[in-house]
Amino acid sequence: MEWNQKNEPNIPTFNDIVEAHRLIEPFIHRTPILTCKTIDEIGGCKLFFKCENFQKVGAFKARGALNAVLSLSKEQLKYGIATHSSGNHAQAIAYAGGIVGAKATIIMPKTSPKPKVEAVKGYGAEIIFCEPNQKSREETLRAFLQKTNSTFIHPYDNFYVIAGQGTCAKELLEDQPNLDFILTPVGGGGLLSGTSILVKSLSNFTKVIGVEPKGADDAFRSIRDNKIYPSQEPKTIADGLLTSLSERTFGIIKQNVERIITVSEESIIQAMKLLFERMKIVVEPSGAVPLAGVLEYPEIFLGSKVGIIISGGNVDLTKLPF
Amino acid sequence: MEWNQKNEPNIPTFNDIVEAHRLIEPFIHRTPILTCKTIDEIGGCKLFFKCENFQKVGAFKARGALNAVLSLSKEQLKYGIATHSSGNHAQAIAYAGGIVGAKATIIMPKTSPKPKVEAVKGYGAEIIFCEPNQKSREETLRAFLQKTNSTFIHPYDNFYVIAGQGTCAKELLEDQPNLDFILTPVGGGGLLSGTSILVKSLSNFTKVIGVEPKGADDAFRSIRDNKIYPSQEPKTIADGLLTSLSERTFGIIKQNVERIITVSEESIIQAMKLLFERMKIVVEPSGAVPLAGVLEYPEIFLGSKVGIIISGGNVDLTKLPF
Repeated sequence: MEWNQKNEPNIPTFNDIVEAHRLIEPFIHRTPILTCKTIDEIGGCKLFFKCENFQKVGAFKARGALNAVLSLSKEQLKYGIATHSSGNHAQAIAYAGGIVGAKATIIMPKTSPKPKVEAVKGYGAEIIFCEPNQKSREETLRAFLQKTNSTFIHPYDNFYVIAGQGTCAKELLEDQPNLDFILTPVGGGGLLSGTSILVKSLSNFTKVIGVEPKGADDAFRSIRDNKIYPSQEPKTIADGLLTSLSERTFGIIKQNVERIITVSEESIIQAMKLLFERMKIVVEPSGAVPLAGVLEYPEIFLGSKVGIIISGGNVDLTKLPF
Repeated sequence: MEWNQKNEPNIPTFNDIVEAHRLIEPFIHRTPILTCKTIDEIGGCKLFFKCENFQKVGAFKARGALNAVLSLSKEQLKYGIATHSSGNHAQAIAYAGGIVGAKATIIMPKTSPKPKVEAVKGYGAEIIFCEPNQKSREETLRAFLQKTNSTFIHPYDNFYVIAGQGTCAKELLEDQPNLDFILTPVGGGGLLSGTSILVKSLSNFTKVIGVEPKGADDAFRSIRDNKIYPSQEPKTIADGLLTSLSERTFGIIKQNVERIITVSEESIIQAMKLLFERMKIVVEPSGAVPLAGVLEYPEIFLGSKVGIIISGGNVDLTKLPF
């Protein structure tokens, strides 16, 4: 979708991330960094897990959504905020709306799982159901925005959202400096973009790597061929990573990210199992993708200090894949 | 069993816990304290969860075992260490043996679940299988000790083990002072004893409460009637809390603990579910017992600041009870 927050700048800088952090800090958890010797031994490197599964709404998405909403004027907030999402961004916008006292409206496919619908309602947002396809989502949202003058907050193609997502790596490097690598999953590229901007300014030797499921490798191919491929018929258990890069996230990633690596479904499930069984944390498949990268490409990370962003923990516990 | 570490004093003091902490600190995690607004709202109080499920071996038991083993002389360590357990204490002794380079031998019922056997082997301990009853356990251990001169480290009726378990509450109160309550589960009473000694010295208004399954309420009845009842045919999902108090833990608890409350199986499962779904942490049933206490007796804790020790996270993820 082409419309976005009004007067929104294009690419955030390090200072925008610092400002975002100042703004959102009262409303987020400073999530802990966990370590696990057994997983270090399996991976052949020293891993530092930044646990955004413990973040508000169960995912890093709270950071970007809060920064976007807290950056709106009182006038804008009067008309409310809106987005379309069936995932963590929906809950994040609902949560952020509650924080600032703005009405939040989420366009969700009518096939969305009941727990996700309940979670969004639980944060006080309104839901408008649409058909379960991109066209219906966009049309429903567009009609709603025209009628209400609400502000659309895109899940990743948004200056403030990207700056907000960068605050996660800021905390990670503050608490654990001298990392050789920082790994994040890649879907639309918001987290990877914010992370890479932050790291480029804060540490001149830390390499940022994006990790993507092989079954949804549009970002990998886009960077390789220097043109954006849309994510078409992605097939992966990592349901948070089905989206395509935008021009903006593509540009940021091309400039700041060392490389993108792709991982198999087996590696994702193995990583998820290790995180549950050994680290005793609940992670969603997308959140296990960076560790899958270490398991599948140990030669890149051998003997290094590696920061891993565990992006979220919203998973149906009755349907664990292991 | 009556035999114990040689020259072992009886009741640890605050200073013994401080010394234990100094001794074991290099080998344990300083586990994080997590909070969750949703659970606070359900419980009607402010909860601080000390996450010992993230501890080495996945449970607080690493603390006591390490302190006991690190307190042995080189001469004693030459002959090895031993215990009987099918639970977290087995892994803890195996882990501690590896740290000091002593041979650890665990007497385990031959019916023990394979993952538990593998975990103990994984830490490098030897296993001797016995029949699945208390008599066979004790006889097998006794014969082994006589043959080898190994030191038996009791899971809770041990000065150093109790002092080691007290280090968990020490970290909790250091990181989060001014708690009105601290809640721990009660099985044999090692964790509750160490916690209560520590808290009595460090904070004169923090009350320590033990929480026990109704289906294994021997500690509750023992304190009520001022005589030790053995745990007979306990029936609870909380498989870490099946043991009885010893004379020593009974005495400590009687003197230092505010009260013991008992909880239903339904509350334990509800607490476990909240911890998985809302806090995104993996806990074993015993580890969810203190939160079950808050859910079942909200009137005690209304508006208070409550520290909760999540004792462990070793659970079969394919058999979650919710």
